[in-house]
Amino acid sequence: MIRVLIFKEGLSLSKITNLQEQIIKANIDVAYISDPMTIGYLTGFYEEPLERVMALLIFPDAQPFFFTPALEVEAAKGAGWSGDIYGYLDHEDSFAIIAEHVKERVANPAKWGIEESHLTVDRLLHLKGQFPGAKFTTNLTPTIERMRLIKSPDEIEKLNQAGKWADFMLEEGFKNLAIGRSEQEIAANLEYALKKHGIMHTSFDTLVQAGAHAAEPHGATSSNQVQNNELVLFDLGCMVDGYASDVSRTVAVGQLNTKQKDIYQVCLEAQLSAQDAARPGITAEELDAVARDVITKAGYGEYFIHRLGHGLGMSDHEFPSIMAGNKLVLQPGMCFSIEPGIYIPGVAGVRIEDCVHITANGCEPFTHTSKELKTFNL
Amino acid sequence: MIRVLIFKEGLSLSKITNLQEQIIKANIDVAYISDPMTIGYLTGFYEEPLERVMALLIFPDAQPFFFTPALEVEAAKGAGWSGDIYGYLDHEDSFAIIAEHVKERVANPAKWGIEESHLTVDRLLHLKGQFPGAKFTTNLTPTIERMRLIKSPDEIEKLNQAGKWADFMLEEGFKNLAIGRSEQEIAANLEYALKKHGIMHTSFDTLVQAGAHAAEPHGATSSNQVQNNELVLFDLGCMVDGYASDVSRTVAVGQLNTKQKDIYQVCLEAQLSAQDAARPGITAEELDAVARDVITKAGYGEYFIHRLGHGLGMSDHEFPSIMAGNKLVLQPGMCFSIEPGIYIPGVAGVRIEDCVHITANGCEPFTHTSKELKTFNL
Repeated sequence: MIRVLIFKEGLSLSKITNLQEQIIKANIDVAYISDPMTIGYLTGFYEEPLERVMALLIFPDAQPFFFTPALEVEAAKGAGWSGDIYGYLDHEDSFAIIAEHVKERVANPAKWGIEESHLTVDRLLHLKGQFPGAKFTTNLTPTIERMRLIKSPDEIEKLNQAGKWADFMLEEGFKNLAIGRSEQEIAANLEYALKKHGIMHTSFDTLVQAGAHAAEPHGATSSNQVQNNELVLFDLGCMVDGYASDVSRTVAVGQLNTKQKDIYQVCLEAQLSAQDAARPGITAEELDAVARDVITKAGYGEYFIHRLGHGLGMSDHEFPSIMAGNKLVLQPGMCFSIEPGIYIPGVAGVRIEDCVHITANGCEPFTHTSKELKTFNL
Repeated sequence: MIRVLIFKEGLSLSKITNLQEQIIKANIDVAYISDPMTIGYLTGFYEEPLERVMALLIFPDAQPFFFTPALEVEAAKGAGWSGDIYGYLDHEDSFAIIAEHVKERVANPAKWGIEESHLTVDRLLHLKGQFPGAKFTTNLTPTIERMRLIKSPDEIEKLNQAGKWADFMLEEGFKNLAIGRSEQEIAANLEYALKKHGIMHTSFDTLVQAGAHAAEPHGATSSNQVQNNELVLFDLGCMVDGYASDVSRTVAVGQLNTKQKDIYQVCLEAQLSAQDAARPGITAEELDAVARDVITKAGYGEYFIHRLGHGLGMSDHEFPSIMAGNKLVLQPGMCFSIEPGIYIPGVAGVRIEDCVHITANGCEPFTHTSKELKTFNL
């Protein structure tokens, strides 16, 4: 009942040392890391503890410690965490135990760093209860986002592997297209093909949407059946060694009418233009505008109702966000999706997406399934 | 990339009215509901918006409104939300828009109720930024937990349906047992069998653990293969109409030794004793003790390292928690797991679990797969 992903990489001491340098600069006494994804990034052990408490505490000048439900102590060690680790049982007072181990390291920690985008109000109140005089006003979220924003070659390699399996999922999805077959059956079949290879986690719910159903950009895979002469949208990905893939393709079943063909070609041109423009120096909002301008000029601007892309790494919902208002300058190692979409209610939905990493002078995609319109005559 | 579950029930106005009464009593001007599960409970529309902002705002004396990413507006209406709804685009300032719509209803909201167990520190700071003079010190989490704690007959029926499919998953898992077959393959096969029936979501990662691997109570399903003369543990469940199931069974493959048989029988006795004792009037901690005493007396107390159970409803991690220290008196309509486990490192792990609802004079399980030791000679 608790999702556990154990990374093969193990403990990355250099990442913890890097964060330690940041907290020394910020002049704080304790960093309280609570986002399971950050903990995974720093320790090699990722788990979603749900309502239980899990935290990594890092100090400028003392040994870090990992605090986790007792259930997970062995798994964390197995994933490579070789530092201090303290487990707690469900009925114990987790914040009292944390406080005790903090005080063994720093007698009076006055200034705490927290992850404001993850820490909930009740847990902050628990910490304040243990350390009534302390300040909890340093937000570590931006520091950690900056660290995670630029992927190392090792991370890029994992994203490439995850991308290969996403291409495999698409291939299996295409093979499974059949008139009258439901979106759910196609999704079940392609996921089963993946799992037979020992890859047990998709990175999000596999999306298969046929015909007008695809005009709902975040609608669910349903019992709706594939019919002739319509577009079918796939949006899917998987987890490999703790890293995610995410790819979308839209394909034709039978003969398309002029409108369907047109929105496909406009969406494709938008995607290719943006992927071509993605390089060091362009800003996130400029890249969004490259794709949006193509769609707007073709008259479909009102039907492209989401940002161009999101970051990709240990999840498919991290930084950078490729959207209007984000002036972030893209740099080598940044990884994100380029996924324009055109959704015309009652007619059809098209989305074409590759995730890429910025290189020295352009970008490279993690997925390689052709983007030219594929037609299946079934 | 966003999980969407649309409930068939639609908008339950009575639940919102109920909450409205609570906030009138608490004398607050605005209730800011941010937990997607609470929103699903109150509106009939469940979605995990990840980094995007989604909130339901309820007032003592004005129309509630639902604030959501623009992408989800149609889906929320489709799920039955017929009240005011405001979508926002990714590049817009979500909290400024929320503030505007709040002020249309209450000119100067001084006292806010929030869900402290869900709201993150950064979002609280955003709200405070929009309403600098207001107080955000009323915690609605306990009120909402109380509401969700007692399930209605309609909810019990959905949990029964989810339970039936969990029994189906177990049956498929047992059919798939084979010497040399990996835990992952068995899990993939049983999930595929489920998805072919259009049930697309497990309620958590299906757990299949063979032999000593099962001694890790929250270890993952792995490439470890089933061997003769060992115990195999299944822990699984699925989502039906927005409600979860969760069941565990441990079965024998081939001949067990005395130790393996003994821990199975002790665990079974603990489970049956607790299920027999579960009734209105007993406290959560007393029920935990019923099972724990059986295991402790048999000499395995140190190997039962988690609470007896957790609540079940729209998720498998809600209240009540059946553990030491919880003096909650059980009442009809409360739903939770009874899942003692004995995990002996290097030897074997056994867990036996049914989820139940408290009735007028006892309890009824949602799952009905036999708990007597099943032996497969393969």
